[in-house]
Amino acid sequence: MATKEEIENFMITDFPQAKCIVESVGEQSATVRHAIGFDELRPGGTVSGPVLMAVADYALYVAILGELGMVSHAVTTSLTINFMRKPSPAKDIIGKCTLLKIGKSLVVGEVSLYSEDDTNAVAHVVGTYSIPK
Amino acid sequence: MATKEEIENFMITDFPQAKCIVESVGEQSATVRHAIGFDELRPGGTVSGPVLMAVADYALYVAILGELGMVSHAVTTSLTINFMRKPSPAKDIIGKCTLLKIGKSLVVGEVSLYSEDDTNAVAHVVGTYSIPK
Amino acid sequence: MATKEEIENFMITDFPQAKCIVESVGEQSATVRHAIGFDELRPGGTVSGPVLMAVADYALYVAILGELGMVSHAVTTSLTINFMRKPSPAKDIIGKCTLLKIGKSLVVGEVSLYSEDDTNAVAHVVGTYSIPK
Amino acid sequence: MATKEEIENFMITDFPQAKCIVESVGEQSATVRHAIGFDELRPGGTVSGPVLMAVADYALYVAILGELGMVSHAVTTSLTINFMRKPSPAKDIIGKCTLLKIGKSLVVGEVSLYSEDDTNAVAHVVGTYSIPK
Repeated sequence: MATKEEIENFMITDFPQAKCIVESVGEQSATVRHAIGFDELRPGGTVSGPVLMAVADYALYVAILGELGMVSHAVTTSLTINFMRKPSPAKDIIGKCTLLKIGKSLVVGEVSLYSEDDTNAVAHVVGTYSIPK
Repeated sequence: MATKEEIENFMITDFPQAKCIVESVGEQSATVRHAIGFDELRPGGTVSGPVLMAVADYALYVAILGELGMVSHAVTTSLTINFMRKPSPAKDIIGKCTLLKIGKSLVVGEVSLYSEDDTNAVAHVVGTYSIPK
Repeated sequence: MATKEEIENFMITDFPQAKCIVESVGEQSATVRHAIGFDELRPGGTVSGPVLMAVADYALYVAILGELGMVSHAVTTSLTINFMRKPSPAKDIIGKCTLLKIGKSLVVGEVSLYSEDDTNAVAHVVGTYSIPK
Repeated sequence: MATKEEIENFMITDFPQAKCIVESVGEQSATVRHAIGFDELRPGGTVSGPVLMAVADYALYVAILGELGMVSHAVTTSLTINFMRKPSPAKDIIGKCTLLKIGKSLVVGEVSLYSEDDTNAVAHVVGTYSIPK
């Protein structure tokens, strides 16, 4: 299994644009964080949907690296998001990923997204990644 | 029905961070464009998934405005994306949206995403928006 | 909150064709069971996808009734299923639903589907129901 | 490419329980039909969601067989359905599938579902099949 530091270095090198940070990596799971500022907001004072999708995608990738090691050409094949509550414009978004299946070529995971310190998820994601051989 | 200019002004005011531009607005449909540069790429020389999701979300919103007028608090309730081909890192992403259902409170639409000048879609999205009363 | 018996009677009257039975109804959750025989199998000795989708849809409805009472015109608005493992042809399918959001007009829930006695889910579903006023 | 007759025989042998019939098979596309009677209805006089999902799954498989030949262990890996309008209880359901991507191991397609003679789709499906090697 990869360590949190290995994964952080990998993500910084390979996704220099991403604004997420790795909070923790566990058994088939990961938690990530995304700071929220003007760039992430949309009218009505809430976090834009694409930001939430990006956090979920990042959390999935981190959980996969934690489980499979530094697989650098894994790609998302599908992602479904349900938006459930209005995120706070003043809180970080926290993404908590749990992997549901680790197959030879396909990984399935789910991510619950939260405004920090809130126990009700703002959105829920199920995504699949294809793992190159 | 709203004109393309009204929609452009609305989107610039209300989504100042969005990098999409409106190409055309038609009968229950819309086409949008997103320039691709370093910020949109991911390792392996391809466009990042969240960029594609953002373009699809934008195209859906533009098509809804074209149909319903300036409904400013419409929110995405769900979105499913299937990634199908590797987008070109050197071409704009074009999103073509068709609305499938315009209900009283829920709108459903699909978006095909292309690297410009390519006829095979790089990704396909189905999304739903909730329309406030 | 509705009792298990009220929900069973409601489902038998209103869904006479359904072959599912209610195992338990809890706090924003429900467990249902579907016996597996020839009618549910497909080539290769596994349970057909539509049967799994039907069990998930049923589990969602039971969980909603448990939470909201006998809402007889609730309808599924969307459902996403990921098939993850081959179900056993010789075991019942168990569906465990957890509601993620109970809104005024929309309910979101997830369902994990299992071959009985197996701890790894064979499929995962996220679904939304629209609740009439 | 497989003929309609080859596909019909394959589906009858391999899916003896399915109540769908093949209407036509075309270029990366297929149309199927499902008769509607008591077994397919739910309260309120409409077609049950699982029936619509089954028709979509069947249409996808038929389109794949038309394109790839008799691949007998193809399995659905994911499916997303949006229910859009109330189907008529007195009309057959027609499923029209278009394949969006035919990859080496994964096929993506969409299906529009109609009550016969109605031009507005009652539901829309995107699904993926995994093709064994």
